[in-house]
Amino acid sequence: MKTILVDMDGVLANTNQHFIDYEYQRSGEKILWDNISGLLEEEAFPNFLEDVNTKNFFRTVPVMENAFQGLDYLNKKYNVLIISSATEFPNSLTEKAEWLAEHFPFISWKQMMFCGRKDFIKGDIMIDDHPKNLNIFPGQRVLFSQPHNSNRDVEKATRVTGWDDIINIL
Amino acid sequence: MKTILVDMDGVLANTNQHFIDYEYQRSGEKILWDNISGLLEEEAFPNFLEDVNTKNFFRTVPVMENAFQGLDYLNKKYNVLIISSATEFPNSLTEKAEWLAEHFPFISWKQMMFCGRKDFIKGDIMIDDHPKNLNIFPGQRVLFSQPHNSNRDVEKATRVTGWDDIINIL
Repeated sequence: MKTILVDMDGVLANTNQHFIDYEYQRSGEKILWDNISGLLEEEAFPNFLEDVNTKNFFRTVPVMENAFQGLDYLNKKYNVLIISSATEFPNSLTEKAEWLAEHFPFISWKQMMFCGRKDFIKGDIMIDDHPKNLNIFPGQRVLFSQPHNSNRDVEKATRVTGWDDIINIL
Repeated sequence: MKTILVDMDGVLANTNQHFIDYEYQRSGEKILWDNISGLLEEEAFPNFLEDVNTKNFFRTVPVMENAFQGLDYLNKKYNVLIISSATEFPNSLTEKAEWLAEHFPFISWKQMMFCGRKDFIKGDIMIDDHPKNLNIFPGQRVLFSQPHNSNRDVEKATRVTGWDDIINIL
């Protein structure tokens, strides 16, 4: 059985929408998806650092559309490992494990991995929205479209625009 | 530069002593190290599950003797990754990241990895107290002596009794 490494933020979790919602609640400003094309999260969201360090930010992030069905499909076909860059924000760690357990109850704690870098994890397929992670991955690369990667293609990667695409190609 | 995977509980953290201290505070019973030889933690400590789920248990565990000097030594010579099986106990995740940052400030968040299984992590050397982790590790194996592994040798592993040994052999 092949091992597939699945990212959280921007893939299972609609973290960009959460930043937009937090900013709207804070300042009343509606950040438009069209206006953050090509920008990294820390460039797109003026209070990025405050948000990611806010208690419960990661615990309450909305689930990406069709991620439940998509991950359930992958979990029956592959050895799924959920890999999240999370150690930069210690508060996020417990919240992310609880969030996964709540929204994806078929994923066990044995399938969760929270790290600071992804280049020392073995797998056959990686689904990620960050080109920096895919560019150093030796296996099959799947780039999950997000505004920040709209102008950054990844060599040998298949770009998907959502979980329906993932079910179709994997 | 070689990559070395360093375990937390039973290697950097004197978690057995912490269980003993918790039990003494709870019941007045002094569990003796000699009496838990050969027993897994869940067999040795009657309130294991309560302790590991107690808030701040992992945040307050004592540092293993000479671990600071030992890890500082390794960190200058190797690419050190701290690998801890932690996702089974979500509360422990944030506490472990904070504990590492407090006691080993030279270790960055990029070097921390909290997981449910260790067989999908690449490295050249592994220091661990659990034979189950070392037995499936293809690189150089270092078994850190703890009561629970006193009767469990690991093929091709070098057994060390503390951090002074590690500095001597690595």
